[in-house]
Amino acid sequence: MSTATPNYDALSATWTRLHRLGHLQALAGWDQAANMPPKGNEARAAAMGEMAGLLHRLRTAPELGGQLQGAEQEGLNDLQRANLREMQRQWRASHALPESLVLRQQLATSRCEHAWRTQRPANDWAGFLVNFKPVLAVAREEAALLAAQTGLRPYDAMMDRYEPGMRCAQVDRVFGEVRQWLPGLIQRVTARQSQEAVLAPVGPFPVDRQRALCEQVIALLGFDFEAGRLDVSTHPFCGGVPEDVRMTTRFSDDDFMASLMGTVHETGHGRYEQNLPREWLGQPVAEARSMALHESQSLSFEMQLGGHPGFVSRLAPMVSAAFGAQPAFEAHNLHRLVTRVKPGLIRVDADEVSYPAHIILRYEIERLLIEGEIEAEDVPALWDAKMMELLGVDTRGNFKDGAMQDVHWPEALFGYFPCYSLGAMYAAQWFAAMRRTMPDLDQRIAAGDLAPVFDWLREHIWTQASRWTTDELALRASGEVLNPAHFKAHLEQRYLG
Amino acid sequence: MSTATPNYDALSATWTRLHRLGHLQALAGWDQAANMPPKGNEARAAAMGEMAGLLHRLRTAPELGGQLQGAEQEGLNDLQRANLREMQRQWRASHALPESLVLRQQLATSRCEHAWRTQRPANDWAGFLVNFKPVLAVAREEAALLAAQTGLRPYDAMMDRYEPGMRCAQVDRVFGEVRQWLPGLIQRVTARQSQEAVLAPVGPFPVDRQRALCEQVIALLGFDFEAGRLDVSTHPFCGGVPEDVRMTTRFSDDDFMASLMGTVHETGHGRYEQNLPREWLGQPVAEARSMALHESQSLSFEMQLGGHPGFVSRLAPMVSAAFGAQPAFEAHNLHRLVTRVKPGLIRVDADEVSYPAHIILRYEIERLLIEGEIEAEDVPALWDAKMMELLGVDTRGNFKDGAMQDVHWPEALFGYFPCYSLGAMYAAQWFAAMRRTMPDLDQRIAAGDLAPVFDWLREHIWTQASRWTTDELALRASGEVLNPAHFKAHLEQRYLG
Repeated sequence: MSTATPNYDALSATWTRLHRLGHLQALAGWDQAANMPPKGNEARAAAMGEMAGLLHRLRTAPELGGQLQGAEQEGLNDLQRANLREMQRQWRASHALPESLVLRQQLATSRCEHAWRTQRPANDWAGFLVNFKPVLAVAREEAALLAAQTGLRPYDAMMDRYEPGMRCAQVDRVFGEVRQWLPGLIQRVTARQSQEAVLAPVGPFPVDRQRALCEQVIALLGFDFEAGRLDVSTHPFCGGVPEDVRMTTRFSDDDFMASLMGTVHETGHGRYEQNLPREWLGQPVAEARSMALHESQSLSFEMQLGGHPGFVSRLAPMVSAAFGAQPAFEAHNLHRLVTRVKPGLIRVDADEVSYPAHIILRYEIERLLIEGEIEAEDVPALWDAKMMELLGVDTRGNFKDGAMQDVHWPEALFGYFPCYSLGAMYAAQWFAAMRRTMPDLDQRIAAGDLAPVFDWLREHIWTQASRWTTDELALRASGEVLNPAHFKAHLEQRYLG
Repeated sequence: MSTATPNYDALSATWTRLHRLGHLQALAGWDQAANMPPKGNEARAAAMGEMAGLLHRLRTAPELGGQLQGAEQEGLNDLQRANLREMQRQWRASHALPESLVLRQQLATSRCEHAWRTQRPANDWAGFLVNFKPVLAVAREEAALLAAQTGLRPYDAMMDRYEPGMRCAQVDRVFGEVRQWLPGLIQRVTARQSQEAVLAPVGPFPVDRQRALCEQVIALLGFDFEAGRLDVSTHPFCGGVPEDVRMTTRFSDDDFMASLMGTVHETGHGRYEQNLPREWLGQPVAEARSMALHESQSLSFEMQLGGHPGFVSRLAPMVSAAFGAQPAFEAHNLHRLVTRVKPGLIRVDADEVSYPAHIILRYEIERLLIEGEIEAEDVPALWDAKMMELLGVDTRGNFKDGAMQDVHWPEALFGYFPCYSLGAMYAAQWFAAMRRTMPDLDQRIAAGDLAPVFDWLREHIWTQASRWTTDELALRASGEVLNPAHFKAHLEQRYLG
């Protein structure tokens, strides 16, 4: 059969192939975190490295440039055109990087991340610097190459890989606003909460019952266990492929809240993946729109729903059934536990209100690092100053709970951090939009009816995948592009209302 | 750096690459059986199909033929020469098959195997035939192509993929002998055992305790849990890669013996894989010698050790500790349970004595199928006749526990079945060799000392990998090539001694 779109068809076949091979790579990554015994690591790293090289060669095959140009002239429909736009974006990012750089980066990050696992608990900043400086050097090279390819500034070019279209100018404006009101808000909330009595749950909480509770809650949240699983890993994540989503959590028998709320978070990611449009699977247009949009789903679940008094009153009897009734499990107390605000050192443990401070600090520092304004040695002093300024917390000398706490920098994921807080803002914006069209939304959630939330997200976010740019998607979904006022209003309503 | 062996080095790099990509494929196969939720199947099949095509193209790349010829002229040491021999063997088998046939075969077997899962319980032989006839047709094509490439007869060429060097002439001789004495031996053993009182264990046997018991026994058998795992799947197997061995079992709470002895079996496979020579990993010379040799390890564990009264007396207190003491768990009763002979319909449930009858029957039938002497429709009548002749069991009309019981034919694994019984014979031969050099072997096993067995297997089998042909390996290990007299002597000693 002859075709009127030979270039587009060839590209489409290449991306299907990338998707299939990427399936094996995603599975191997999940298994590495969830199952792999320690002595399997070397062989696994070699296997995944081989595949990474292969995928890079497929993404940068010489014929792709011509096919991408040729497809521009072919009679494509709107979806095909959107798909081509995403192919071009992915191709530009891969094409900018020679395989030798990809391999050097993999070596540097793998060495740094491996050493970091022991250096972090030992608070060994000097040792960390030895491996981190080469990581930073390669990341700057990468940023320069991406910048040359895209015409963007270096940090913008890095951020564009995770959040297409997002630029520092916009992040600065948005985070600049947050910087104005956040410290005051935190003070007002903590002052108010200091008046409230909160009962702490009394453990231990057996792991098998925690697991059963998590699975119940995941099912309540609509996750399809016939197309995914929940397993255990040191660092929880949501991986796998849209057809087979692999979520992980971790259990500690003295704290069920962390694994429960963490699982709610991953379920947001999981449902996004499970509800991407099936008929286009394998094509870039069927991939999740961006990392901020992805986080907007996990945070719609964890923060918007998870901290919602109506949803918490749904959880409360499930918690009592799992561990036996105790006063701490009553709905109003459970809600106070879930919404407790307490500035602290660790980002992943942070509450919804102080979380943006952790992100703003990292964004400001990593941008200076990538643009060569500061060196790795300068990080701790900046970290200390910004933590004091934003959260009033003293971090001096505590590297392990300071600049060494996250895996992102050892792994060279520069440009990712902003997505977390942008995601929180989008999540607030989605719920504001839902309330405009469904004034009774909160009553329905309180009555245990979550379907309106899932229906809205499915229609406006999940099934839209990468059909539109992020701005277009936000506009279609909520009538406006990113507007952080909704996030501020959400926090004020929930914590001071 | 220049090298004196450019062709060999290029081949070696290709096989390292095949090993790494094969790691991802093996992991995906294990996950499919042990973890994958049902809706993940289509995407997984597509991903593994993509990889199968890629691996086939790598194994048949045009430059390999010249490199294999060129390497013949290079100054290789003995190990390199052995490695080259194995590369040539693998290349011949792959090179004979066009990718289109590989893909057609995958389609036919995948369709047949999928339908078989429901047709078997429904006893639907007519439905099975519809999908099995195309599988057989492609297998005959494959056999013809392999025969043309190797100069062997079609079934020999198929069997050579699993058991290099083994030919029907030898199998006929060996199985012909067994055919002479087996029915009589079964009669004598069952007559003798009918006089013995055997207590049946009283269940239920909670699955978590069965799992803990299996893990204890696996550890006792020397499996390295830092380089492997035990999981659950419908059909137990040993998969993964040598650096990270994935064994599976299945649990039923009314029968702990099946999962326990099945796990002992898989541990034999697992230790072989874990003890392949690490410095050559990724090269063909470091792969397990053959499937009969592989089964000789699983059966050394399950049958030679597992049915050994000394080993069973080691197991007995572990069983009591797991489930609470009961008379059936006393060592002499447990040994009678383990060595109970009862001809039946199902191969995988068969005891050590009647097992070869199941294999001989399958070998005789599948050889006729591949060589075009019979058609698929002729199988049930032959099956019925041979079951009556060999085991005195009536199978008429029972297709599901007859010719439909194994996954091998739906998956076109023609030529594999003989390896099971050849493995049982090799296992008996290894233990006879051990006893010649260690006359106190049985006392040491009875005293709980398994190290002499493992040391002998490690030295003579595991670390030798594919360095020698199977005949050379057997000769070096035991002073003779395959000699089925040891198997007969073993059965007579254990069951009539």
